[in-house]
Amino acid sequence: MSEQKYSYQQLFGFTKAILQKIGCSEDHAATSAKVLLSADLRGIDSHGVARLSGYVRLWEVKRINTNPSLKIVHGTPSTAVVDGDSGLGLVVAPYAMQIAIDKANNVGTGWVSVQNSNHFGIAAYHAMMALQHDMIGIAFTNASPLVSPTFSVERLLGTNPICVVIPAGEEPPFVADLATTTAANGKLEILQRKGGVAPLGWIQTKEGKASTDPHELKAGGALLPLGGDREHGSHKGYALGAIVDIFSAVLSGANYGPWVPPFPAYVPMPDEQPGKGIGHFFGAMRIDAFRPADEFKRHMDKWIRRFRSAKAVKGEDKVLIPGDPEREMEEERVKNGIPLLKPVVEDLKFLAEKLNLEFL
Amino acid sequence: MSEQKYSYQQLFGFTKAILQKIGCSEDHAATSAKVLLSADLRGIDSHGVARLSGYVRLWEVKRINTNPSLKIVHGTPSTAVVDGDSGLGLVVAPYAMQIAIDKANNVGTGWVSVQNSNHFGIAAYHAMMALQHDMIGIAFTNASPLVSPTFSVERLLGTNPICVVIPAGEEPPFVADLATTTAANGKLEILQRKGGVAPLGWIQTKEGKASTDPHELKAGGALLPLGGDREHGSHKGYALGAIVDIFSAVLSGANYGPWVPPFPAYVPMPDEQPGKGIGHFFGAMRIDAFRPADEFKRHMDKWIRRFRSAKAVKGEDKVLIPGDPEREMEEERVKNGIPLLKPVVEDLKFLAEKLNLEFL
Repeated sequence: MSEQKYSYQQLFGFTKAILQKIGCSEDHAATSAKVLLSADLRGIDSHGVARLSGYVRLWEVKRINTNPSLKIVHGTPSTAVVDGDSGLGLVVAPYAMQIAIDKANNVGTGWVSVQNSNHFGIAAYHAMMALQHDMIGIAFTNASPLVSPTFSVERLLGTNPICVVIPAGEEPPFVADLATTTAANGKLEILQRKGGVAPLGWIQTKEGKASTDPHELKAGGALLPLGGDREHGSHKGYALGAIVDIFSAVLSGANYGPWVPPFPAYVPMPDEQPGKGIGHFFGAMRIDAFRPADEFKRHMDKWIRRFRSAKAVKGEDKVLIPGDPEREMEEERVKNGIPLLKPVVEDLKFLAEKLNLEFL
Repeated sequence: MSEQKYSYQQLFGFTKAILQKIGCSEDHAATSAKVLLSADLRGIDSHGVARLSGYVRLWEVKRINTNPSLKIVHGTPSTAVVDGDSGLGLVVAPYAMQIAIDKANNVGTGWVSVQNSNHFGIAAYHAMMALQHDMIGIAFTNASPLVSPTFSVERLLGTNPICVVIPAGEEPPFVADLATTTAANGKLEILQRKGGVAPLGWIQTKEGKASTDPHELKAGGALLPLGGDREHGSHKGYALGAIVDIFSAVLSGANYGPWVPPFPAYVPMPDEQPGKGIGHFFGAMRIDAFRPADEFKRHMDKWIRRFRSAKAVKGEDKVLIPGDPEREMEEERVKNGIPLLKPVVEDLKFLAEKLNLEFL
């Protein structure tokens, strides 16, 4: 599929301008643009500017408040619950993560659960805020239900990612950011466009049968939890997705399970809402709350080097450390620009026209 | 295979007596027996009294100190590092978890990383200590290297479990306790005994090829991370196992990766030791540090009921909540006794004789 390249600065400026047009303050628009663009830089194209028009449509149907009053509604020295006031998750999440970091500065660790938010972009952006403070960063979020628990034909969970980021010394940080499903929804969308076949274990039909047809998801089927089927441990992927849902939403007072609001604005809201908006969960742990940071970093370097230099299976290049592929992609795209597929460019042009702006 | 049943009280008394014979105080022996027997009750037979002789052999080769001085060596209001003084993990872990609970009582959450410990039984016992305090409980541990990261032919990680326990109201608690591999080692041992065939995705040969032969593990092969292969997300299982290793050992100053000491006393120690003993990680989060506990519990009940009543795939009984099978097993075994396989009974008889005790 044809694509065109844009520089980070071009796309950042455009994204920020769009968000100001729909009522975001300059500060909120800049933060949101930075979060969205971090996905494009890291190669998570499904979570970057390709989603910009989706956020705007949520604003159009009044499901996003672009002028939110973010506030802490409950807390202790090491915890807080944040009310996102229906704000863009792209703004709510960095606000909440900063509170986790502040609390970690005070008492060693900080843990923040968030209600009344929206899609927050990639989890790694928020968790990585901890790195410059010599902290471990953690970010979870729940999401629209697309995943069936083991033995279920109903979709009850989102792809609910777990992100854990750990600083190192001379080595780059350890950055794990993983959907708790076999495959992320973005990978399925690529197969749908290409007319490809999915490996068994990614999806099931609406009757709960294993399938290789990527279109089954739109026909009422479901994504499968990490593991794929019971014999391969899908009950573990289900448990992990459930933990993310409960920490993000039952702990904060957001919606959970099948009641999480959908991202596409044309999908009606669930008929019941046991909480407010969608939920996130953030954590920050100061390294020196456990041992001196330089000592820890020396051992992390040793850990990383031992794993990276492990003997590889014949035919494979090398053993990777979580975060390696995304970091390499970021280096490449900072230098050579961010490629956007033609439908994404068309979508951005349409958006610009609607809001009386020029696309690049 | 023939088996014999014993009551909980019989096995508890015997286990406690054995542990006192090797130098444990009455208090330590009772705690350890309780932790071990909780595995037998919950149906995790690989982690119960079947392991008792293994602990004794570690004591014989002086790798376990049955009279340890447990102490906190570093900390903040919400964190601590515990030195287990080479004690039985069965004693060190409840000590450390109690510190996490105490800290959560003070500042909302508590997080404890442990160095210089040993095998701690089942993670769920320790995490479940949080429940009576209306807290979420978390327990991780690293373990002897049996698992190859994605693309690696070397064994660099243990089966490194993640356990998260969440209280509910009228419903039983949510108890997820999962090895970060496709299948636990215990399941492979059962297939080895039976001469069965393993599903693809559980193990690889020493060259890193997928295999269905459960004996490959003893021939230099490896267990595979949850996901099984790259196409099914094994890089996620690898990342999760790595997080457990780093939180348990790099954060505390224990041994990590390929340098974790083996459980079988006949396996020589690794030639290098970057830390002390094996490592664990515990967390406790007070529910009311986020929202009123009764409100949270009402929503947990709603969450659990919605998932349990989800429409099941044809041919399956129902959708389960993590912890359901183990709780049902415990109810059954409390009532009818704990079945032990003949080789386990023989092993316990031999142990009794060696230490001048009577077996039941």
